[in-house]
Amino acid sequence: MNINYPYLLFVGNATDSLSIKMARSAADWSPEKCLAEYRLPGCTVTTGCPAMNIQQAAQAGAKSFVLGFANSGGFLDPQWIPTILEAMDAGMDIVSGLHDKLTDIPELQQKAKALNLQLIDIRHPVTRFKTGTGKKRIGNRLLTVGTDCSVGKMYTTLSLTNEIQRRQVPATFRATGQSGVLVSGDGVAIDCVIADFISGAAESLSPENSSEHWDIIEGQGSLSHPAFAGVSLGLLHGSQPDSLVVCHALGREHMRGLPLQPLPTIEQTINLNLAHAKLTNAQARVVGIAINTSSVDAEQALQICQSISQQTGLPCSDPIRHGVTSIVDNLL
Amino acid sequence: MNINYPYLLFVGNATDSLSIKMARSAADWSPEKCLAEYRLPGCTVTTGCPAMNIQQAAQAGAKSFVLGFANSGGFLDPQWIPTILEAMDAGMDIVSGLHDKLTDIPELQQKAKALNLQLIDIRHPVTRFKTGTGKKRIGNRLLTVGTDCSVGKMYTTLSLTNEIQRRQVPATFRATGQSGVLVSGDGVAIDCVIADFISGAAESLSPENSSEHWDIIEGQGSLSHPAFAGVSLGLLHGSQPDSLVVCHALGREHMRGLPLQPLPTIEQTINLNLAHAKLTNAQARVVGIAINTSSVDAEQALQICQSISQQTGLPCSDPIRHGVTSIVDNLL
Repeated sequence: MNINYPYLLFVGNATDSLSIKMARSAADWSPEKCLAEYRLPGCTVTTGCPAMNIQQAAQAGAKSFVLGFANSGGFLDPQWIPTILEAMDAGMDIVSGLHDKLTDIPELQQKAKALNLQLIDIRHPVTRFKTGTGKKRIGNRLLTVGTDCSVGKMYTTLSLTNEIQRRQVPATFRATGQSGVLVSGDGVAIDCVIADFISGAAESLSPENSSEHWDIIEGQGSLSHPAFAGVSLGLLHGSQPDSLVVCHALGREHMRGLPLQPLPTIEQTINLNLAHAKLTNAQARVVGIAINTSSVDAEQALQICQSISQQTGLPCSDPIRHGVTSIVDNLL
Repeated sequence: MNINYPYLLFVGNATDSLSIKMARSAADWSPEKCLAEYRLPGCTVTTGCPAMNIQQAAQAGAKSFVLGFANSGGFLDPQWIPTILEAMDAGMDIVSGLHDKLTDIPELQQKAKALNLQLIDIRHPVTRFKTGTGKKRIGNRLLTVGTDCSVGKMYTTLSLTNEIQRRQVPATFRATGQSGVLVSGDGVAIDCVIADFISGAAESLSPENSSEHWDIIEGQGSLSHPAFAGVSLGLLHGSQPDSLVVCHALGREHMRGLPLQPLPTIEQTINLNLAHAKLTNAQARVVGIAINTSSVDAEQALQICQSISQQTGLPCSDPIRHGVTSIVDNLL
């Protein structure tokens, strides 16, 4: 994937910071590629990048206009098409992580052709996958799993990869969502694969490797989420993880998007994931707990992590606040 | 879906009776629509329909040429294209249940246009689905689940539907695979849906209905199959079944297609499915066990079903040999 940068991150009129995950992920993990963000009136969230409009960003050298928001279902709201066309007229490629494909919209196709610009639908696999085999592959694999969607699995996975690499152990971040693919420039948005091939796509994402190598695989969804558990289970089976890290966000009152659906406990999440992981890897174990503590103060965050660690007997930390050294100590 | 009949069922040079499920399903459940089967040298299996070649079938009035076989991955072998073109020249529409789309093959597209024939890819949804909501819907739902793939879930589901309807209780068969869609003329091939929408598609397949109505939903795959468990789990959550029937085939030594993967027991299958079913329906219960006993004689079949019934405390029968009256007694 050849995504030109710097980016102008478009966050529209978003009011939910979780809904601009694409933009925030790029700003947090590839800040050197992010020139600015473009916010519209009514927008109450930010990536922290400087604000620019399309003309300002073009003059400052922006090469790609990144649709930084997502919604359940991945629809491309037709109201954004004039804005996208404006960015193209200003000379930018368009990058989208939605289910709706840019290349399916004739106006965008025509302008891209006329101006020799790229329309990049990073969520859509270009590979033809096979069905899963369950066959054991050489090399080590870690998968992050969650009590819910959007609890910090990608941030945890990137933090773990960086910490393992810092210790001179060969490790590769394996992106499974559109934000991860944008950050790493590679991977498979597993929720956009045809259902029959979820496990097969996950197998191809972490192929056989040297016996000391670690694939650090970004998890998706949650085995306890009624809408997305199938994706989580297929990814788990295809990944055949040796090690799991359970991710959780404090302050969540119900499963994301489903006010009536209660959250599982961390212990339930450990047990459910281990029970299924053993189908393709009898040695699977949980090596740590990662908590997104952004909803509480620093002192509370430390106390909660210590308490969870005592309850579960596993290292527990907030990857952003505390790092992941204790989890990686336990892993290696 | 408007599939013209009678059909010529094409089984190629198949040697595995499970691999011609599309053709056998049509022959067994819509015999009035099946004119003949077309077998090539080397083929060792049959649907039981009379044998005809393309010219003979065309003269006898065949309207659709049904690709009756499947393979893991749903590939359309290019070697069949000349045969498909021959059937089109003889005036037949083409019906396929493969992942590879007929409409993606330019030669077929051109001939279909020139001869005004239909190319029907029944596995490919034409609907745009939403993600699942987990919201409770009025009406009753039964889902068949399996110890493995291809153990008789579709035959069991059709048998249950017929028996419930015979008792004047309103019931609808809900097809979730290409064979079921061919038999019923409606449904969603759930394994061909984009992964993010598995549960949402399952929700749309059995919409809210009257409080006495039963949707009898065809299961797919198995929660214990490393390649397809994600599809099974998404279908389970979206279906929100009140009742489950566990299906099993005698004589299976390992999970289909995976020689190293052991089969779960019936008890494990009951427990695993119930544990997950309760996420979207706390009242879910297993109401019976359906056994494909075709690999043993009639006396053994009866003994085995009685023994399983005693072990599990649930009615157990072979839908084809014994019917499903005891299961429906327990259900209603």
